[in-house]
Amino acid sequence: MSDLYFASSNAHKFEEVQRILSNLGVNITLFKTTLEEIQSDSLSKIAERKAIDAYTKVQKPVIVEDDGLFIDSLDGFPGPYSSYIYDTIGNKGIIRLLENIESRDAKFVAIIAYCSGDNDVQLFESSIPGKISSSIEKGGWGYDPIFIPAGESKTYANVPNKDRLSHRASSLKKFSDWFMHKH
Amino acid sequence: MSDLYFASSNAHKFEEVQRILSNLGVNITLFKTTLEEIQSDSLSKIAERKAIDAYTKVQKPVIVEDDGLFIDSLDGFPGPYSSYIYDTIGNKGIIRLLENIESRDAKFVAIIAYCSGDNDVQLFESSIPGKISSSIEKGGWGYDPIFIPAGESKTYANVPNKDRLSHRASSLKKFSDWFMHKH
Repeated sequence: MSDLYFASSNAHKFEEVQRILSNLGVNITLFKTTLEEIQSDSLSKIAERKAIDAYTKVQKPVIVEDDGLFIDSLDGFPGPYSSYIYDTIGNKGIIRLLENIESRDAKFVAIIAYCSGDNDVQLFESSIPGKISSSIEKGGWGYDPIFIPAGESKTYANVPNKDRLSHRASSLKKFSDWFMHKH
Repeated sequence: MSDLYFASSNAHKFEEVQRILSNLGVNITLFKTTLEEIQSDSLSKIAERKAIDAYTKVQKPVIVEDDGLFIDSLDGFPGPYSSYIYDTIGNKGIIRLLENIESRDAKFVAIIAYCSGDNDVQLFESSIPGKISSSIEKGGWGYDPIFIPAGESKTYANVPNKDRLSHRASSLKKFSDWFMHKH
């Protein structure tokens, strides 16, 4: 199996991606780095450019992951800026923005972008519908403690076996199907 | 006087910048375009890269403006993503996030970035301290109706002669002092 790198500055994310891909028979190595991201309303564009930036740094086949929580009644907020918004107003801020708001529909979107050469990028996207909880559950990381996937009663932070249904697992499955077939 | 362009997709902003610079003896022409922006916690970096992108498009001396509202108790939010966050949760969202929060200190920061050749950028920054109002005033645009500059009783939307004290006017003054001296 050829070398495959995962470029990220987020240790939580690497752990989760590694666990999922390893179960699918794909081994990855962390390339810890801060990647350049563009501002865009499109996660795909952000992920694509990030993958190209990652490849110029790693010079080996590499994947990056980009994801975002999109809340319907907030016009998609926090969307492509989920990470910055988590670091500033956090889950507390999201819950506050939705106080007394009935429509709590949201979706979590994940994109895996694979780059193995200059400007040659493959994208694998999945999204999972759900709802924002009324309070912050204990456990988990990121927005997990406030996102209840459709058909479940608990948030990502406490749902049994998150990988079975998560947006991240689903996009990684798409990627690994393609990647295993290719190699 | 040589040609000077202002690259932006925001007509409100152009109008304000043109009015201020014209009073300072500098004429600008609008180059209406959407510029590529990077994601960064640093407004300066965003403005610098935006100016370089603008120059590659305009191929003439060009300025761009980037600004952001930084709220202390929200860890600088909405900061460098002020524009996206305004378009999604808006002033209503900001007021909601600060409900029952005593500390309402904030600052408005503006950066003018001038580029007249490849990778040659000059930055002019100003910031104005103030407070977030308890409700949204009528009038103005953007975050103006919720930002009360220090020493004033009304928001930017209704303060008499905003240009006399605004962050944008102040950074433009710095730019024009330098630009007039240079030419």
